[in-house]
Amino acid sequence: MTVNIYDDPDFFAGYATLPRSAAGLDGAPEWPALRALLPSLAGRDVLDLGCGYGWFCRHAAEAGARRVLGLDSSGRMLARAREINAHPAIDYALADLETAGLPADSFDLAYSSLAFHYVAAFDALLARIHRALRQGGSLVFSVEHPIYSAPGHPAWSEAGDGRRIWPLEGYMREGPREIDWFGARVAKRHRLMSTTLNALIGAGFAIRHVEEWRPTDAQIAAKPSLAVELERPMFLLVAAGRRS
Amino acid sequence: MTVNIYDDPDFFAGYATLPRSAAGLDGAPEWPALRALLPSLAGRDVLDLGCGYGWFCRHAAEAGARRVLGLDSSGRMLARAREINAHPAIDYALADLETAGLPADSFDLAYSSLAFHYVAAFDALLARIHRALRQGGSLVFSVEHPIYSAPGHPAWSEAGDGRRIWPLEGYMREGPREIDWFGARVAKRHRLMSTTLNALIGAGFAIRHVEEWRPTDAQIAAKPSLAVELERPMFLLVAAGRRS
Repeated sequence: MTVNIYDDPDFFAGYATLPRSAAGLDGAPEWPALRALLPSLAGRDVLDLGCGYGWFCRHAAEAGARRVLGLDSSGRMLARAREINAHPAIDYALADLETAGLPADSFDLAYSSLAFHYVAAFDALLARIHRALRQGGSLVFSVEHPIYSAPGHPAWSEAGDGRRIWPLEGYMREGPREIDWFGARVAKRHRLMSTTLNALIGAGFAIRHVEEWRPTDAQIAAKPSLAVELERPMFLLVAAGRRS
Repeated sequence: MTVNIYDDPDFFAGYATLPRSAAGLDGAPEWPALRALLPSLAGRDVLDLGCGYGWFCRHAAEAGARRVLGLDSSGRMLARAREINAHPAIDYALADLETAGLPADSFDLAYSSLAFHYVAAFDALLARIHRALRQGGSLVFSVEHPIYSAPGHPAWSEAGDGRRIWPLEGYMREGPREIDWFGARVAKRHRLMSTTLNALIGAGFAIRHVEEWRPTDAQIAAKPSLAVELERPMFLLVAAGRRS
């Protein structure tokens, strides 16, 4: 990956304060929706691309996965994963998603949470994932929604009459974006939703479900600040199956 | 369809001034991209849902389609279609897409340009289209992009520093939208891109290609005002195939 920002100690300290870092999967509001897209994990071989702290790897292992391979490009992340989310069924390994070799015909599920938008060579990665999946295998992932990643100034704005708006611009201009996050400059890729879907189709996947995540009414009732997520989507969730 | 606005004489007169009305397919900047998604038309049976002036019906007939059925909910539109785009292979018929019965197993291609975003019961329409297509048949259509249809105030705005932005809001709130167009109040439906795609998958279609339309560099060079379309997409184009 082009980002190794997670190895920056200051950034890492900031990132550790996020609910999704500290509380694991339950700290990520989109997790229930992503989980709903997963196949049964019992007895399956699972690959987690950009595993971070290893929360999902542990979830898969505890759900009975036969073997879980968690890959991440940050050694610091992996050290923490081995510390807090170790399990006999899990192997954690340092790997750059841009180039990582994956064993052929070895997994029933490839999973990735909020990592693919750091990857520049997405088509090449999908080709490797397709090859690594067994016939009938699934790819389930989340990325930042392109509506979220497009603007040069990704922050809420006000219209003249005081309505809160998302100042969309440059949606059709794909490519690098840089944002400030926990005091660091983070580089990511803005990729159209259509580009993501066509890349999957081109790599031999069938699209099974596409979700522009929104909080449920219950989530908004429990945490009213989430209501703003109805104005624009932050996450895109996709489930695809190996077609050929 | 819920809109019969095209039968309003004043609206009709305004609509007639649009390049896509007067100049036909070549007046629609997204036509080359939509055309690129079409299968071969020679010898095929073609259905056009919301055919308007009949420009596409004529294109299909002249490309050698065996039979073309153009449906529209506006009698005024159909009268004009019969006048300017008559062809022995074409039948034009009055039909409301919300309810129109379609003959089973009768078409190789179902086509629709900028009509489905007026339809409320989209799942039901897709079920009827699926049934009307032959095995191996295709559905190719365009709709307004949900980024375009979402805002309550769909007009360019300026950020504090003078950048032009699209004031996105309410993207996740699906449902009716009303806009002013040629002096009339036009009712349409805001539907997420994911909802459109999942509806297709649920109806038994395989997604083949998804396109968030942008003008080509050549189009922008010929008509610089099109450059603004790079800030946000106006049209969504989809090609799908009957899967089962």
